Amino acid sequence: PDNAALQGAADRNGQLTKPPGALGRLEDLVIWYAAWRGDSRPQISAPQVIVFAGNHGVTAQGVSAFPPDVTVQMVMNFEHGGAAINQLAKAAGATMDVHALELDRPTADFTAGPAMTEDELLQALRTGWEAVDPKADLLVVGEMGIGNTTPAAAIACALFGGKAADWTGRGTGVDDAGLANKTRVVAEGVALHGDSGDGLEILGRLGGREIAAMAGAIAAARVLRIPVILDGFICAAAAACLADVSAGALDHTVAGHQSAESAHGAVLDKLGKQPLLNLGLRLGEGSGGALAINILKSAVACHSGMATFAEAGVSGG
Amino acid sequence: PDNAALQGAADRNGQLTKPPGALGRLEDLVIWYAAWRGDSRPQISAPQVIVFAGNHGVTAQGVSAFPPDVTVQMVMNFEHGGAAINQLAKAAGATMDVHALELDRPTADFTAGPAMTEDELLQALRTGWEAVDPKADLLVVGEMGIGNTTPAAAIACALFGGKAADWTGRGTGVDDAGLANKTRVVAEGVALHGDSGDGLEILGRLGGREIAAMAGAIAAARVLRIPVILDGFICAAAAACLADVSAGALDHTVAGHQSAESAHGAVLDKLGKQPLLNLGLRLGEGSGGALAINILKSAVACHSGMATFAEAGVSGG
Repeated sequence: PDNAALQGAADRNGQLTKPPGALGRLEDLVIWYAAWRGDSRPQISAPQVIVFAGNHGVTAQGVSAFPPDVTVQMVMNFEHGGAAINQLAKAAGATMDVHALELDRPTADFTAGPAMTEDELLQALRTGWEAVDPKADLLVVGEMGIGNTTPAAAIACALFGGKAADWTGRGTGVDDAGLANKTRVVAEGVALHGDSGDGLEILGRLGGREIAAMAGAIAAARVLRIPVILDGFICAAAAACLADVSAGALDHTVAGHQSAESAHGAVLDKLGKQPLLNLGLRLGEGSGGALAINILKSAVACHSGMATFAEAGVSGG
Repeated sequence: PDNAALQGAADRNGQLTKPPGALGRLEDLVIWYAAWRGDSRPQISAPQVIVFAGNHGVTAQGVSAFPPDVTVQMVMNFEHGGAAINQLAKAAGATMDVHALELDRPTADFTAGPAMTEDELLQALRTGWEAVDPKADLLVVGEMGIGNTTPAAAIACALFGGKAADWTGRGTGVDDAGLANKTRVVAEGVALHGDSGDGLEILGRLGGREIAAMAGAIAAARVLRIPVILDGFICAAAAACLADVSAGALDHTVAGHQSAESAHGAVLDKLGKQPLLNLGLRLGEGSGGALAINILKSAVACHSGMATFAEAGVSGG
């Protein structure tokens, strides 16, 4: 981040026609955004939403309420503009790109071995890295992948410790028996791979292609100084792999929302991120992140558009 | 509300390409909105933000950190487009109207007698009522009035009971001594007027012109079937006066946010309203309500724009 831009943005914020601090988190957001953009009076004109899709061998264990075919069907839906994320991206004035990662070649079942080879992991990270538009000024990464709350839970358990049950939730809606089965699968994966290495090693062994692609995109955005709004549980798991490797790896990110997936709040706590929204979403696709674009755009609009006390002739600045 | 529209909207919601309930509160919001608009597949194209301004005799008691002149100065700022609410309304695609209510004739100090006569109350209610654009499809009412967290606290205390300290907060930023003084003022007002009658009587005796105008606008919106997003503490106090008179008077409203003003959460609890946002705002002007317009617009955009399972050829509907 750019300290001069940060200071300039904070100075301007202090002169605007409102009591000090009266815009609450909107004020912190815009100062953080200004610092990462290197612009003391920034605007947001080119938000990008990227949805990555992948398939998971672990679905053979019956961890999802939906069949794996739904992943490719939903990719078609994204491409035809019919999914929630299409509407949310449009409402937020964002462009949207979709990257399907070898859907006909699911990852391996991580209860039997690593989900991805090192080559597969690197390829997925690269897809994510290259998907980021260098001209974007804000990024949301989302995902679609039937079964992918299972690898996300396994990643969280491997990185943060505790029991598999602490990190395993109902995803798109498994019942009690399904939840018990899913918890067993997470526990087996963590038992097999949990001590294998750092966040990137965990990402390869327990993750999935779309999760790795999200991590690659978040890392690329940092290099490009593009602030990122994190989405839900799966996005948080991808981000946590980066944070495990480098402590400040998520400083350019903010948590867009807290989802209804039970462990998302705990992962955000571990990452030190306070969500902007908490509306019970549990869809993925980048939906909560895209919704939060509106909040950040509004914060930036106040900062760039408001009059100062001196300009407006208002007492008390 | 229109039950056929409600049912139609709920039916459509159940067919959209997402797991049931995965859009969380967005789903409830759009069904509520559809019912009030009488349209099973509604859109939002004409949100209106109205800011009412008034001055308060009780400022003579030193209850605010800012001088009363700031009210008229901020009205000028609204009219010139320089305030936070101007930016937030624009970012949300809303029109914005400003109504200054006799700023050169503050209400009377309620520690000595009623803030408004019955005629003054009725005139302020009428101003609010007539300010609502019948063609609007969503309404946010906000306010500006130096000192007006004091009447709002007094209204809340009179309507909901408890001690003055339970309902009195720091407003735009009074210090500990200021808070103690403000609490005394609220207690004196409630001692004098608290048992005088129903919510409208309390509104007249302890309220202010801009608070009454907000109540008038909220009531008008109900008749016009225009859903309302409530703003902060002062808006909630205005709304509470209506709820005291008629139990369902706020069914067409949703709480846009919970502000940092300490008693706002308690008033929302009393009104049975769960806020959409909680971002530490404490500005008034309609700022939190306007910010929440984006959430409701996004909810409606998903509902109207998403493909159904059948349309998209996705399994599992």
